[in-house]
Amino acid sequence: MARKHHALDKSKALLDRYDDILVRGYIPHKNIFGMAEKGYPAFVQRAQGARFWDVDGNEYLDYLLGFGPIVLGYDNPAVCEAVQKQMADGTVYSFAHPRELAVADLLVDTIPGAEMVGFFIGGSAATSGAVRLSRAYTGRDKVIRCGYHGWHDWARPEDVGVPKIVSDLTLTIPYGDLDALESCLKAHDNQIACVVMETIQESGPPDGFLQGCVDLAHRFGALCVFDETKVGFRVAFGGAGEYFGVVPDIATFGKACCNGYAGSFIAGKKEILGAEVCRSTWMTATAHGDPLSLAAMEAVIQELKRLDGIAYQWKIGDQLIGGVNDVCGEAGLSYRLVGVGPMPRPVMDDSDSERCLEMLRGCLARGFYLHPTHPMFLSLAHTEADIVATIEAVRESIADLG
Amino acid sequence: MARKHHALDKSKALLDRYDDILVRGYIPHKNIFGMAEKGYPAFVQRAQGARFWDVDGNEYLDYLLGFGPIVLGYDNPAVCEAVQKQMADGTVYSFAHPRELAVADLLVDTIPGAEMVGFFIGGSAATSGAVRLSRAYTGRDKVIRCGYHGWHDWARPEDVGVPKIVSDLTLTIPYGDLDALESCLKAHDNQIACVVMETIQESGPPDGFLQGCVDLAHRFGALCVFDETKVGFRVAFGGAGEYFGVVPDIATFGKACCNGYAGSFIAGKKEILGAEVCRSTWMTATAHGDPLSLAAMEAVIQELKRLDGIAYQWKIGDQLIGGVNDVCGEAGLSYRLVGVGPMPRPVMDDSDSERCLEMLRGCLARGFYLHPTHPMFLSLAHTEADIVATIEAVRESIADLG
Repeated sequence: MARKHHALDKSKALLDRYDDILVRGYIPHKNIFGMAEKGYPAFVQRAQGARFWDVDGNEYLDYLLGFGPIVLGYDNPAVCEAVQKQMADGTVYSFAHPRELAVADLLVDTIPGAEMVGFFIGGSAATSGAVRLSRAYTGRDKVIRCGYHGWHDWARPEDVGVPKIVSDLTLTIPYGDLDALESCLKAHDNQIACVVMETIQESGPPDGFLQGCVDLAHRFGALCVFDETKVGFRVAFGGAGEYFGVVPDIATFGKACCNGYAGSFIAGKKEILGAEVCRSTWMTATAHGDPLSLAAMEAVIQELKRLDGIAYQWKIGDQLIGGVNDVCGEAGLSYRLVGVGPMPRPVMDDSDSERCLEMLRGCLARGFYLHPTHPMFLSLAHTEADIVATIEAVRESIADLG
Repeated sequence: MARKHHALDKSKALLDRYDDILVRGYIPHKNIFGMAEKGYPAFVQRAQGARFWDVDGNEYLDYLLGFGPIVLGYDNPAVCEAVQKQMADGTVYSFAHPRELAVADLLVDTIPGAEMVGFFIGGSAATSGAVRLSRAYTGRDKVIRCGYHGWHDWARPEDVGVPKIVSDLTLTIPYGDLDALESCLKAHDNQIACVVMETIQESGPPDGFLQGCVDLAHRFGALCVFDETKVGFRVAFGGAGEYFGVVPDIATFGKACCNGYAGSFIAGKKEILGAEVCRSTWMTATAHGDPLSLAAMEAVIQELKRLDGIAYQWKIGDQLIGGVNDVCGEAGLSYRLVGVGPMPRPVMDDSDSERCLEMLRGCLARGFYLHPTHPMFLSLAHTEADIVATIEAVRESIADLG
């Protein structure tokens, strides 16, 4: 496929207005200023299936998918139908709604180790809920975290605007390092409420790592929380916990579970979540348990099961990883996709990063949005032909480098 | 209107299953167990206009409206049309969307003092964003709060699961008491990042109170944040700040701004929100700025303007307050509605609370859901005939007491 004219004038014009009126910090993960400097668009006009169109009319096959939530495809008919049906009956209520029980039943049937469920909006809220419950249950204050767990105070130690005294309660360990975890638990003996682990980082967990996290946490009287926000409904319904056969005390889910609606949830052991102290732990919000997200979640689960959608993500993800890595490897370019099939993570060497970025711009100009650094995602709207075309676009873009 | 048979068997059956599978703490504000004990339903089946039907088929005129978000009515056609149109174009994106700028423009035009805007999901997130920005801007850690500001750690001092060291950073003052505020600012001189004030509590602000909060905060080098989550788009678009002509540094909005979608926002001074340190303050979430909420917000603003909806909330709210208070006063019952028209707050004396609750059960059995303690809300779907009928139901229910 030929490189197309790739105008970004309208994106740039909107970006020029951004700082007049919008606070930057509410979507810094999109890094629209930094990406624009690298030749990426800044504003999407609309999205459909596995594709989006930017405000300049350029079409892209999307491997970011809103940073993870889209798993069936944008504007998925089954999700839209379920949501629209619920919309006609209301989007928030003055009391509870029976769908909360129905979706909880479905989740308990679907996710190994899920005995009780609580609903939130946004992955940050679900993971913060798990931390608050862990602190309530253990009576301890400190948290060991590993990975990205959202934007709440405890999860962003050392950030501007987060008091140092709050940051000091959150300890950080490197991924995959059980010795570091054990040392940290020992150094703060009887003080750690929970270990919060983003289950899949880098190239995935070393053998025994996730079970080791659970065992070590328990040995020191702490809970183990798996943050499956990016991983759940992708690697398996129950995320890496299910895939690797490890049951945490609490797991947290967001993003793909609602295919683009804001709902998130925690799932875990009844012994903990049903304990008296956890029952009286306050984590309320007007929209928690919102029926639109629950309608979407039900449709997502049904469609992923009907279409064997977890296996499909693995299949096309592995094809993408294999194909891109072969082509880049043959050409001596350092850009690689690592990690697990449903969540390919791009890496590149500093030494040829300019050539890698130029290759990615070539892909963009051919209509393929591959990210330079952030984990990417697949959807059921990506076809095998899309994967083949993406690999071909990488090959052609490398050839353009000369 | 006659008292109808008011079966709640299906609500009770669902409630019996709740603790098997659901974590209580994600919607404790609904207090479904406590309300069920008082004779209220626990589960809504569907809602339409100003009414909802519980799972037993009982119909109620709703004065809680999902605890505030519904301002145009459930399933409002203008909102539904705007949201469905946006749904077909996607619900979350890999880059920004031009609607973020368009709705920010609209908010700046609509709300006095709003020079810059940032989008969140949920009122808790917006208010926590304002606190983080205040801490970043001032370089100080402590917060003086007054009112309910959501469930995040800083906003729930002394809650189970919130470390004491975190709670110690949040100071609380009584509403309406400028002397207490001044004393607190003095006692923690050079340490207070911001005063966060829920603008309307009790019967509303004493004369000069809100301006006094801003002036005192500034005198001590702190920012003043108005929490307008319940009040915005009701008392005025810009909440009590606009209504009383007081401009805070940052104001936070949620609930009614999206008529049942989860979007929320902060608005404030460019000098602060555009400062370099605020630009680099991290408050990110996948769904922040979600186009569905923004589509809903745009429709809400347009409909409230087209229908003069702020004035309408005042008119029927004042009618409800006057009518209910007259009827209860004549009958010697202590139940009263206080506060401002668009947000009537119920109060009752301990001495006849059982009779008041029995009266409210009489209203329920006639199809009118009045709350015993929580601030209530009006919508544009409430007719003047609805208000008249509600007052009549109160009169008849008092007569039933004998």
